[in-house]
Amino acid sequence: MTARRPRVTSTDVARAAGVSQSAVSRTFTPGASVAPKTRKRVVEAAARLGYRPNAIARSLITRRTKLVGIVMAHLTNPFYPPVLERFSRRLEEHGRRVLLITVPGQSRGDAALPEILQYQVDSLVLTSATLSSAMADECARLGLPVVLFNRTAARTRVSAVCCDNEAAGMLAADLLLDAGDRRLGYVAGTANSSTNLERERGFFERVASRKAPRPKRVIGDYVYETAFAAVRGLLAGRGRPRALFCANDVMAFAAIDAARDLGLRVPTDVSIVAVDDSAMARWRAYDLTTIRQPIDAMVDATVDLLLGLEDGRITGSVVRRLPGELVVRGSARLPARLRRH
Amino acid sequence: MTARRPRVTSTDVARAAGVSQSAVSRTFTPGASVAPKTRKRVVEAAARLGYRPNAIARSLITRRTKLVGIVMAHLTNPFYPPVLERFSRRLEEHGRRVLLITVPGQSRGDAALPEILQYQVDSLVLTSATLSSAMADECARLGLPVVLFNRTAARTRVSAVCCDNEAAGMLAADLLLDAGDRRLGYVAGTANSSTNLERERGFFERVASRKAPRPKRVIGDYVYETAFAAVRGLLAGRGRPRALFCANDVMAFAAIDAARDLGLRVPTDVSIVAVDDSAMARWRAYDLTTIRQPIDAMVDATVDLLLGLEDGRITGSVVRRLPGELVVRGSARLPARLRRH
Repeated sequence: MTARRPRVTSTDVARAAGVSQSAVSRTFTPGASVAPKTRKRVVEAAARLGYRPNAIARSLITRRTKLVGIVMAHLTNPFYPPVLERFSRRLEEHGRRVLLITVPGQSRGDAALPEILQYQVDSLVLTSATLSSAMADECARLGLPVVLFNRTAARTRVSAVCCDNEAAGMLAADLLLDAGDRRLGYVAGTANSSTNLERERGFFERVASRKAPRPKRVIGDYVYETAFAAVRGLLAGRGRPRALFCANDVMAFAAIDAARDLGLRVPTDVSIVAVDDSAMARWRAYDLTTIRQPIDAMVDATVDLLLGLEDGRITGSVVRRLPGELVVRGSARLPARLRRH
Repeated sequence: MTARRPRVTSTDVARAAGVSQSAVSRTFTPGASVAPKTRKRVVEAAARLGYRPNAIARSLITRRTKLVGIVMAHLTNPFYPPVLERFSRRLEEHGRRVLLITVPGQSRGDAALPEILQYQVDSLVLTSATLSSAMADECARLGLPVVLFNRTAARTRVSAVCCDNEAAGMLAADLLLDAGDRRLGYVAGTANSSTNLERERGFFERVASRKAPRPKRVIGDYVYETAFAAVRGLLAGRGRPRALFCANDVMAFAAIDAARDLGLRVPTDVSIVAVDDSAMARWRAYDLTTIRQPIDAMVDATVDLLLGLEDGRITGSVVRRLPGELVVRGSARLPARLRRH
């Protein structure tokens, strides 16, 4: 396992198989025509010699590397691992591979971009990280398709796919108000993230339009520990909310634990609803009522958009907002319309 | 955003900056010498023109792509996201990028390998997926360094880094037996995985050597739902164990929920210890006593090994087993030696 052996070339394979080099090339080109018998001889010779067609050398001819860069900041947020897994699987179905770039949590994603571009990715997905207008313009100038996932960006003309977060905020407000709760609280995620801004706006506007008191607001930063401390303070104080809308599942788990830590019952004393529907929402300790983000549909829409932008079928920027869906479990008091009889 | 613009070359940058092409090349080669003033002019001209040195074209000359392939099967197991995140960060510090390959859970990882090799990765990390002996031999023949992470493989001479799982099993047995529990249970992960086989062996052998009754055993497959059903059955039956060793955290969360579902208190009625120390182990609902896998040290050892194998500093195969560390929280009854006074 020290120095690499000299690489086996298509000429070596052609010689060993007793066919032309063109036959070898066609065997390894998806969609190219080659007689079954010839293909069999080529594949056998290639296996014997350890030949692998070189995707990278080919990319210099096709100007396509088949690499899609995915920039992620919050892999430890349970929302993202299933997202990354589905991206990887779906892109592989289209013959692409994921070049993964992780960036620190609050990063703009700009710092990593120059190096990513060195790899000549065919397109780029930005998840948690924000993209500056300058860098978005740079990508546009290079003709590099970029899609924001679970993010929208003000002041850029970048395509984006996300959940309809404002509608999710409204849905949460209606659920809690319809159940008879008027003293509400909001547990905010990272304050200036687009997901939080949109969920918060939908929630507060719907509460206001229904003439309920303005909800109390604490910041949980999308993180368990921060949310636990914030919610514990909120629930221990005077005039405690009867019901909470948490901007993601993890903060709702913290809210449930904080309520129980104070001897409060969920949902009898505090009713809790969130956004995500991560795997843990089903766990017995939490049994969380939450608005499911349609991860599969969001990823699929992003992949369709990327491929469309790559081959020019889609031009300009497209923003798609997919509706969330309420998943009723045990953590929220229910309005009469949703109660099981 | 349709067709890509013609690529800016180093010659264009040299002309715009009024320097030699060699100066441009040296500016973008890590470690190469170039005068600060020259570097500044090159970087400014490169930024103005949108020039990016082409890592892929360079790889054809250096025979190094700086890509490390990482094969993962279980991204939704909370053990893996922080692992992937640290791999990405540490490899980036060494100028590498992660080519991510996800494979179905029970896959051998072989199916994806031919395509991965097309990308001419410099080296390969296999996490959850097993690697067949044939495929391991193929990698060795190509001179491609491979390191198994959190896995060992019988009958191959592939390098591996993992937690000392057998010692973890012994540690769990000692903890539970020292606390005075003699009726034990084992919640197995995926039965034929090396992590499960090693943890199980360490646990059962230590229990036997200490003359305690053979523990009851159920299979949880490393998954919450499977473990919940299995543990519920075990605890509802006759002669229920007083203490459980779960082969990972997620199954311990399920075990705690199953115990509570039966009206049993943790740890008073059922004492529970596990392996992992995932983020959720700290959550109030679980407060899990568990054996921490040293993820950071494991990833760092793997990266060192990969780089050593790549440049020939390390030859042959190396297997490193790093010790786990007991993290005491509230889910297990403690022996007198560990009780706080």
